Amino acid sequence: MRTDRAILRLSVEARPQFYDCDPMGVVWHGNYPRFLELGRVAMLEKIDYGYAAMSESGYAWPVVDMGLKYAQPIRFGQKIEIETALVEWENRLKFNFEIRDLETRRRLTRAHSVHVAVDMKTEQMLWETPPILRKKLEPFL
Amino acid sequence: MRTDRAILRLSVEARPQFYDCDPMGVVWHGNYPRFLELGRVAMLEKIDYGYAAMSESGYAWPVVDMGLKYAQPIRFGQKIEIETALVEWENRLKFNFEIRDLETRRRLTRAHSVHVAVDMKTEQMLWETPPILRKKLEPFL
Amino acid sequence: MRTDRAILRLSVEARPQFYDCDPMGVVWHGNYPRFLELGRVAMLEKIDYGYAAMSESGYAWPVVDMGLKYAQPIRFGQKIEIETALVEWENRLKFNFEIRDLETRRRLTRAHSVHVAVDMKTEQMLWETPPILRKKLEPFL
Amino acid sequence: MRTDRAILRLSVEARPQFYDCDPMGVVWHGNYPRFLELGRVAMLEKIDYGYAAMSESGYAWPVVDMGLKYAQPIRFGQKIEIETALVEWENRLKFNFEIRDLETRRRLTRAHSVHVAVDMKTEQMLWETPPILRKKLEPFL
Repeated sequence: MRTDRAILRLSVEARPQFYDCDPMGVVWHGNYPRFLELGRVAMLEKIDYGYAAMSESGYAWPVVDMGLKYAQPIRFGQKIEIETALVEWENRLKFNFEIRDLETRRRLTRAHSVHVAVDMKTEQMLWETPPILRKKLEPFL
Repeated sequence: MRTDRAILRLSVEARPQFYDCDPMGVVWHGNYPRFLELGRVAMLEKIDYGYAAMSESGYAWPVVDMGLKYAQPIRFGQKIEIETALVEWENRLKFNFEIRDLETRRRLTRAHSVHVAVDMKTEQMLWETPPILRKKLEPFL
Repeated sequence: MRTDRAILRLSVEARPQFYDCDPMGVVWHGNYPRFLELGRVAMLEKIDYGYAAMSESGYAWPVVDMGLKYAQPIRFGQKIEIETALVEWENRLKFNFEIRDLETRRRLTRAHSVHVAVDMKTEQMLWETPPILRKKLEPFL
Repeated sequence: MRTDRAILRLSVEARPQFYDCDPMGVVWHGNYPRFLELGRVAMLEKIDYGYAAMSESGYAWPVVDMGLKYAQPIRFGQKIEIETALVEWENRLKFNFEIRDLETRRRLTRAHSVHVAVDMKTEQMLWETPPILRKKLEPFL
């Protein structure tokens, strides 16, 4: 989050549920990708490029890399904030995430995900962001 | 399980994982449908009508009804057996399930699921089992 | 929903995510219990008997029965409303649910769940609702 | 997998299910941690330090770091092999993973997870592996 310059940044609130938590009473580490998804979806909708727009545009954006650093557990009942920053967009999309306790603002988790464009007709991976996404991002650059 | 005559019956073993369990240390009730799926998949493959064969046949079989009676919790570390019985097939598919402790054979859960055929071209629900399934079931009737 | 008299009733909105959906492009039937949980949690918090209050009260309320009727699929991108009704409370808790399309109000799913009180010290199931829950419900009866 | 010397290495087979897959017909990227868990559990049981033994030993081993590189999608119906290698153990546990197609042996995913010991009485993180784990690993060093 520190080293990458963010082009866009936004926060969404979430509330981990009972079913997200494991026998230790904390969110199971493998359930965090669902929280990242909430942040990413909010970001993509902000630039008017949510799943429906993506699909219409003829590109899919599969994840090729995801990483998470779990500094503090998320306990059952704790409300969280997921800050999402778009930090790369020219050749691929890279999002950085910070999950924080909603009340104390203490940082609990840092994470990132990297996505590449795939042309849905040819099933070929693109090495450059397609024009449609550049256009969507223009107002924010 | 008692009132319905089973056309076919089989058991699969499963082992609930840490991520299946909730802060009470037992499998979260909403994760049981994954166990039923394991039993149903085994049954459909036994009659050579697994997902790939279904898809080729031009029909999907969405669940229209599912019910579960949780008599005993499934604790983390407990190994289980899922017995699946096919009890209806002429107009729809109905499966009955019993989940038992693998060692003691004590019954933990009873469940059922009901599925109807949908013609994937017309997206119409069928009120009778299509010939392809009758043919698959013939050796077992 | 029709036959049971509701003591309490409320609606929450939800938005199924990409990860809730299966290769048919609809919410996988086994993911619906998560939606029911959202409605139930909202209801229990309304009567000031959420998970924290439950735990303090010394009782757990495991699910003993759950049933779902899937009338229409929930498609990816569809926003939904989960109406929860408390229809029994004297000996056990019974909730009825209706999931509807948020825009059209068309009913998609009907469901119910039944819960019994377990004394967390003795691990005994109770055949009558403990006084604490009666007290919480009093303002609504 | 290449740079770290593995102390222990083993493979487990798995079969992604319908409910693991998303509307693109591939395993949703956020469901992979469940596969890593299968490999890790097998490894820890091999050294007789599964969840029950951990719990008895008085330590928990939360994940502090997890990373995944998705080279190829895992398609519905594809059977996979999860190779798990224990590559660090002196101060923390580090596992490397490779997910491969079971038939072709083509590598689909590389991943890692890092775990630290937490003393369950004091809730303090340990900077060195506790003696119990050293003893469990001794036969393999």
